Amino acid sequence: MKELDCIFKPRSIAVIGASDTPRKWGRLMVERPLQTGYKGAIYPINPQKREILGLSAYPSVADVPGDIDLAVITTPSVTIPNILRECARKGIRGAVIITAGFAELGEEGRRLEEEMVDVAREGGIRFVGPNGMGIWSAAGHLSLCFHQAPKSGPMAFVSQSGTFGVAMARVATQKGYGLSKFISIGNQADLEAADYLEYLAGDEETKVIILYLEGLKDGRRFFEVAKRVVREKPIVVYKAGRSKAGARATMSHTASIAGSEKVFDGMCRQVGIIQVQEAFHLFEVAEALAQLPLPSGNRIAILGSGGQGVVGSDACSAFGLELPELDPDTARTISALLPAHAPRAKNPIDFAGSRRTALQEAEIIEKLLRLDYIDGVISNVPVSPQIWDPSLVVDINGDSLSEPVQIAVDGARLYASLPKKYGKPIICLRFGRLENDVMEQILGEGGGIPVYDTPEQCALAMSALFQYGTVRRKTAPEK
Amino acid sequence: MKELDCIFKPRSIAVIGASDTPRKWGRLMVERPLQTGYKGAIYPINPQKREILGLSAYPSVADVPGDIDLAVITTPSVTIPNILRECARKGIRGAVIITAGFAELGEEGRRLEEEMVDVAREGGIRFVGPNGMGIWSAAGHLSLCFHQAPKSGPMAFVSQSGTFGVAMARVATQKGYGLSKFISIGNQADLEAADYLEYLAGDEETKVIILYLEGLKDGRRFFEVAKRVVREKPIVVYKAGRSKAGARATMSHTASIAGSEKVFDGMCRQVGIIQVQEAFHLFEVAEALAQLPLPSGNRIAILGSGGQGVVGSDACSAFGLELPELDPDTARTISALLPAHAPRAKNPIDFAGSRRTALQEAEIIEKLLRLDYIDGVISNVPVSPQIWDPSLVVDINGDSLSEPVQIAVDGARLYASLPKKYGKPIICLRFGRLENDVMEQILGEGGGIPVYDTPEQCALAMSALFQYGTVRRKTAPEK
Repeated sequence: MKELDCIFKPRSIAVIGASDTPRKWGRLMVERPLQTGYKGAIYPINPQKREILGLSAYPSVADVPGDIDLAVITTPSVTIPNILRECARKGIRGAVIITAGFAELGEEGRRLEEEMVDVAREGGIRFVGPNGMGIWSAAGHLSLCFHQAPKSGPMAFVSQSGTFGVAMARVATQKGYGLSKFISIGNQADLEAADYLEYLAGDEETKVIILYLEGLKDGRRFFEVAKRVVREKPIVVYKAGRSKAGARATMSHTASIAGSEKVFDGMCRQVGIIQVQEAFHLFEVAEALAQLPLPSGNRIAILGSGGQGVVGSDACSAFGLELPELDPDTARTISALLPAHAPRAKNPIDFAGSRRTALQEAEIIEKLLRLDYIDGVISNVPVSPQIWDPSLVVDINGDSLSEPVQIAVDGARLYASLPKKYGKPIICLRFGRLENDVMEQILGEGGGIPVYDTPEQCALAMSALFQYGTVRRKTAPEK
Repeated sequence: MKELDCIFKPRSIAVIGASDTPRKWGRLMVERPLQTGYKGAIYPINPQKREILGLSAYPSVADVPGDIDLAVITTPSVTIPNILRECARKGIRGAVIITAGFAELGEEGRRLEEEMVDVAREGGIRFVGPNGMGIWSAAGHLSLCFHQAPKSGPMAFVSQSGTFGVAMARVATQKGYGLSKFISIGNQADLEAADYLEYLAGDEETKVIILYLEGLKDGRRFFEVAKRVVREKPIVVYKAGRSKAGARATMSHTASIAGSEKVFDGMCRQVGIIQVQEAFHLFEVAEALAQLPLPSGNRIAILGSGGQGVVGSDACSAFGLELPELDPDTARTISALLPAHAPRAKNPIDFAGSRRTALQEAEIIEKLLRLDYIDGVISNVPVSPQIWDPSLVVDINGDSLSEPVQIAVDGARLYASLPKKYGKPIICLRFGRLENDVMEQILGEGGGIPVYDTPEQCALAMSALFQYGTVRRKTAPEK
C-alpha cells in the first residue's frame, strides 16, 4: 500500500466537526461520500451528537471502535493541532483539512500552520490542505467535494484554487471529461504539488496529470519529480498569477508567491511539462493526451470545408505544426475521391461544403495516414444519418439497424479504428453544432478520437500531442 | 429605399434553377424562405415545371406576372451571364448567386466571372456571390441559407467562408447570439466587403458588424469605408489565411490573396477595427459591444472567488487592461461586506468561495462603479435561488413569486440596472456551469450584461469595449 492510499483509497473515514446543519462543511463532508457511493465506513465525530445523517456519531476519534484510514477535518483552525494529536494516537495516517484561516491570512495563521505541520510530522500523518475544497477519488467512489460523482476517467486534476478548481471540474464533468482524481491542494502545508505528482505517477487510473498552479512551495523538487514523472505520463500545467495584479491576488488566495514566470516557463520546457495559456485548455489538451497515439513529428494534414481548413491551418502554424504539401500521386488519388466541384486536393483538403459520410472520410484519412510525411490528421465529425432523417433511431448497440444507419455506423467504426491501426492521432472538429451525436460517440469510444468545438482547439490538442511525443522520444531509455 | 434593400428587404424573389429534387440548391432556395416565414412572393423559375413545393413555377423571369426585387440563382456557371441579361430586362436590381465554379477554379472561371460582372453592371444589377452559401436577413424573415431562422439580434455577420461561416452562425444561434444579417459573400465578384459595410452602417437592425475575412478585393476602399463606419458602429474582424498554409488554402477557397498580415493588422489599428485572434471570438466580443456602455478607460475591477480573480487578472493584463488597487476607504467599506473568512478587499476582490446573492454582489459593484478610477467591472453570475432548492419555480414574469425567489429576482434586476445607471460596463462569468439560468436571463434582458464561460472570454470582451471606446473618443466630432 502506498503512503497516500490512506487518503485516496481509505477503507474508513472519520469526519471531525461533523454536523447536520445544512450547508455546513461538517455536514457536506458526511453527505458527499454517501451521495457518491463510497463503500467504506464513515464515522461522524461530534461530541454533542449520537447520530448524524443516519450514521452513528462519536465524541472523538478515540471512541471509534474500528480503524480509521482518513480524517476529514472541518473544525476551526486553532483546534487542529490538538485534533491531529488525537488522530495520531488513533493511528490515523491521512487527513484532508478543509479549514481555512492559516498562512493565507498572515503571520499568525502562518505560525498556526507551522505548528500543525510539526504535529502531523511527529504523528506520522500526511495531509491535504488546509484551506482546500476537498478531494474526489474515482477509485473509492469517494467524494469529499462534489455532490454528484464526476464521470470517472483518465485525468487527475490537481488544483491550487478551491472554488475555481471545483467550478472548472464541474464544467469539465458537464462536458463529458472523466476524472480519476480531483485534489484541491489548498495551502500545501504538508503535501505539496510534487507529492501528488509522485503519487499520481503510480496511480493506475490516471493517464494524464493536469495542474492549476499559482505558485510552488519548493520549485526545485517539483521540477525534479516532474522530470521523472513525464517519462511515464504527461503533465499539463496552467500557471496563474502571471501578471502583477494576478500575483498580488495569489498571495491572499493560497499564500503562494507566484515567482518568476520566465524561470517557470523555462523549467517547464526543459523538464517536458506542457503548459497551456487558458485555464480550461487543461482538460481539452488532456483529453487528447489520454487517448491518442503520439505523433512522431509535427506534420499534419487537415480535411474539412474551406474556411475550416484555412482557420485550422493558421492555428496549426501558430502552434508550431506544419502542413506539408501533398505529393502529386496522393493529390491525384484523393482528388478523385472529392466531389466534382471541389478544388484539387491540397493540404488542407477542401471538401467544398459537401457533407461526407464516415466511410468517405475514413477512406481519405487512411490514405493520408499511410504517408510517411504525415504524422496526424485533423478532420471533422462525419455526418450522422440523423442529419438526413431526424426520425431515424440510432441505437448503435441495437440488434437490427436500418440500412442507412448500419452503413453510417460501420463507417464510423472503421474511422475510429484508424489511430490504433496506424499509430497516428486523429482529432475532429464538431462542425456547426454544440451537441455530441452518435458519430462522435463511436469515434470516442471506438478509437479515442477527441472532438472539439473550434479549429483552434483541435490544433492546440494536436500540438500538445506533438510536444509530448518529443518529450517521450528524448527520455526513452536507450535500447 | 437603399440600393441593397432589393437584396436584404426584397418584396419578391425569383429562384432561378428552382427544383423539387431533395438536397438540391434549387430546392433549398425555395424551401428556406418558406420555412423561416418570408412574407413576400416567391417565384420558382424552371422551364420544365408548373409547380414547385406548392408554388406556381414559371419558365423564365420574363413570364412572372409581378415585379421581382431579387433573383436567387443556382444554375450552372456558364448559364449565368444570359440569366443576368434576362433579369435586367425584367427590371430586377438584386441577385444572390449561389453557383460555384468561377475565379476560385482558375483562369477560365475568372473570365466567366468577369463577363458576369460586366453584364450585371450594364443591366444595373448588384449581386452577392458567386460561390457563396446565401444570406439571412432578419428584417424580411428571409433565409436563403438556414433551415431554421436564427434568433434575430444586433449582429450582422459577413463571412467570406460559406460552409464554415454557416457552421459558425449555427453554433452562434445555438448559443443564443442574435443575428440581424448573415451574408456569405463568396468570391465578391460584384458586391464586396466594403459595400456590405456601407449598407450595414445604415441598417437599423445592426449594432455590430462582424467579419470573417480571408482577403480583400480592394483594401484601400475597405479601410476608407471602415474608417467612416466605425464612427457609428463597431466592426470586428477575424482575418484568416495568416499562415503560409492558410494563405495557400484561401486561394482555391475564395479566390482571394491573403496579402500582408502586418499591413492588414496595422490598417485595422489605424482605422479602429477590432481584430480577434480566434474565429468564434467574433460573436463573444460582438455580444458585449452590442449591449454595453463603453468604458472611458482600461481600469477594471474584478469580483469573484480566488482563482477566478487570479486568472481574470492575468487575462486582463494580457489584453491591456489594468486593475487599480483600491483606495483604503473603499477597501474598508467593501471588506465589511465580505464574509468573515475572506481576505481584506483588494482588486481582484475575493469572495473566498462564498456564494453571493445578486443583492450582495450588486451592493459591492455599485460601490466600485462610483469610483472615478474604475471604468468597468468583471464579476460572476449571482447565485440562482434554484441552487438551494431546485424545486423552486422561477417564472420571473409570474404574478406571485415565493419570497426567496422574489428577493433573488429583485436583486438581479438591481444588478442589471447598474451599467445604464453608471454608464460603465459589467461582464459576468458563468461560474461552474454550462447552462444559462434565470439570473443570467435577467442580467441579459434587463441590463445587456453578457455572460461568458471563461475568465479569459470576459477579459477579451472587456478589452474590446475599451478598444472601441478609444476609437469613439478619437473620432467624436469636436463640439
